[in-house]
Amino acid sequence: MQPKIKDVARVAGVSVTTVSRVLNGERYVKDDLKEKVNQAIDQLGYAPSHIARSLVRNKTNLIGVIVPDLTSSFYSTILSSIEEAASTNDYNLLVCNIIEDIDKELKYINVFQEMRVEGIIIMHEKINEEIRALIHKMNIPVIFSSVKPMDQEFASVIIDDYKAAYDATKYLIELGHEEIGFIGGDMRDITSGQNRYSGYRNALSDHSIKIIYENIRFGDYKVKSGYEQMKDILRNKQTPTAVFAVSDDMAVGAMNCIWDHNLRVPEDISIMGFDGSQLTELARPRLTSMEQPIQDMGKVTMAALLKQITNKETSNEDIILEHKLVVRESCIRRDS
Amino acid sequence: MQPKIKDVARVAGVSVTTVSRVLNGERYVKDDLKEKVNQAIDQLGYAPSHIARSLVRNKTNLIGVIVPDLTSSFYSTILSSIEEAASTNDYNLLVCNIIEDIDKELKYINVFQEMRVEGIIIMHEKINEEIRALIHKMNIPVIFSSVKPMDQEFASVIIDDYKAAYDATKYLIELGHEEIGFIGGDMRDITSGQNRYSGYRNALSDHSIKIIYENIRFGDYKVKSGYEQMKDILRNKQTPTAVFAVSDDMAVGAMNCIWDHNLRVPEDISIMGFDGSQLTELARPRLTSMEQPIQDMGKVTMAALLKQITNKETSNEDIILEHKLVVRESCIRRDS
Repeated sequence: MQPKIKDVARVAGVSVTTVSRVLNGERYVKDDLKEKVNQAIDQLGYAPSHIARSLVRNKTNLIGVIVPDLTSSFYSTILSSIEEAASTNDYNLLVCNIIEDIDKELKYINVFQEMRVEGIIIMHEKINEEIRALIHKMNIPVIFSSVKPMDQEFASVIIDDYKAAYDATKYLIELGHEEIGFIGGDMRDITSGQNRYSGYRNALSDHSIKIIYENIRFGDYKVKSGYEQMKDILRNKQTPTAVFAVSDDMAVGAMNCIWDHNLRVPEDISIMGFDGSQLTELARPRLTSMEQPIQDMGKVTMAALLKQITNKETSNEDIILEHKLVVRESCIRRDS
Repeated sequence: MQPKIKDVARVAGVSVTTVSRVLNGERYVKDDLKEKVNQAIDQLGYAPSHIARSLVRNKTNLIGVIVPDLTSSFYSTILSSIEEAASTNDYNLLVCNIIEDIDKELKYINVFQEMRVEGIIIMHEKINEEIRALIHKMNIPVIFSSVKPMDQEFASVIIDDYKAAYDATKYLIELGHEEIGFIGGDMRDITSGQNRYSGYRNALSDHSIKIIYENIRFGDYKVKSGYEQMKDILRNKQTPTAVFAVSDDMAVGAMNCIWDHNLRVPEDISIMGFDGSQLTELARPRLTSMEQPIQDMGKVTMAALLKQITNKETSNEDIILEHKLVVRESCIRRDS
């Protein structure tokens, strides 16, 4: 398999010590020996072992990343931007795909510990106690990206989800809509579940609009659940003139459901999304969405993590990024 | 930072040797010492170092994966299935996102070598000579997934791209279409570029259908290029009644372009995709597509790689998976 230092020594016809000296760039190695060693290195394709060196330097340049769903364009876009920032800083990613599988997550956290990762990035907020305790004991920087766990033990890079959902709802109200349906997320999630729902509700009540519970449904952020929840909403006696879904995936699912019912977006029902994923431009009509700065989120997360690693201290201070309403084609003024 | 074996010894009030004996499960360690060591391990959150052990065992359980574009649902789905198979077999993935960046790829291959990955999976076929030489020298199993590089040095897990494209075109011919446009891939790629184009051309000529060069365009597999190429095709005097795009992303781009021109799919133009990505079900109308078994592809790739690792021998034998036409809503019989 991989050539070792003793193989280099054998091929070069020198001692292991000499090879080691050449590798470490020490002076006082005769030029012809240096030449022989370098030729042997070339010939064998020898590379110094990262693992051996990291043992000595106590530095692995590894970051563990936990993604809830690699096939979601939202997470894969954040991961892509984390990877870019990591690579620029000579860090490498151990990527772990959790799909609400606690055992797998636990196993990976153990791997992270054994592999001596220097930091961890987590993109879901349903951290159980065992995992929390394990991470805590590792005593290395941990940052949550795009989500916020239950308490303030670790830092998060997020937007103000309450405000963003409030602003999205307010925009629909300003377009004249009064029956505004809602497809929310998992209410166990603080940011994407609870905060977005509160933002929606408070925007309605601040504008004296009655909350119609039949038009409020909760999904799991994915296209399919947006479709299913919209189907339920369309069964109601009085269907809303606009629906706000708290992920672009669910919004596209809702749009597809409306299409399949031979209704039109936005003429019959306006649809507002959330996230700013690739789907916003892919959908027809193009999806109006309350956007998170997904590209920045990965970069900012990685920068914050590296800062903690470099300063050798952990921080639990959140970083709040700006949300932005991007108006496309899926929401129009309500016919008066 | 991470507690070390000597910290455990200090807290337990025993020697490092005793800790080591307990960790290695040796007999002849007194029960009360064992108890003390285990308490100290618990208290400190000590975990044996993977890197130290991998030095001894010459086994890192690491696989390097090179993905051309993490944000593409095609690649992220394959990656997700690779990750699942790896995790089941206690392997971990170092994930590297190349975006046609040779320098970054070269750097990562060096990282893979330094990290002593046990195998490499590559998902693009534009391997340059320097990288090829480097991989060759590493002398570890390498498998290309969903693509095939220029020569037969390494194994690939692929479908029969020629046959798949032939069958897709033949299906459109059987629906009565005679002007069938084509949005191809990168002609430097053998499988997804050249073979799919040959399949299209030969299906036409085998059915005595004239090739209309104005209706043949080449993109980069992404949504945007499908859109742009379709725009060019729509500018032609005689637009085709069906278009075959060699990726679902390009097919969706083409559908969006048709929508933006106030034409209808499939009534005005039928659209055939290729890949079987998530987009096929997301699109409206749903996309008829010549599908690759994307989920299986990751699993089969990982299984083949593990087999090579276990048997300590590299193989260059390709594994050909079945393609399958999945008829949805985007292709209809041509009006006679």
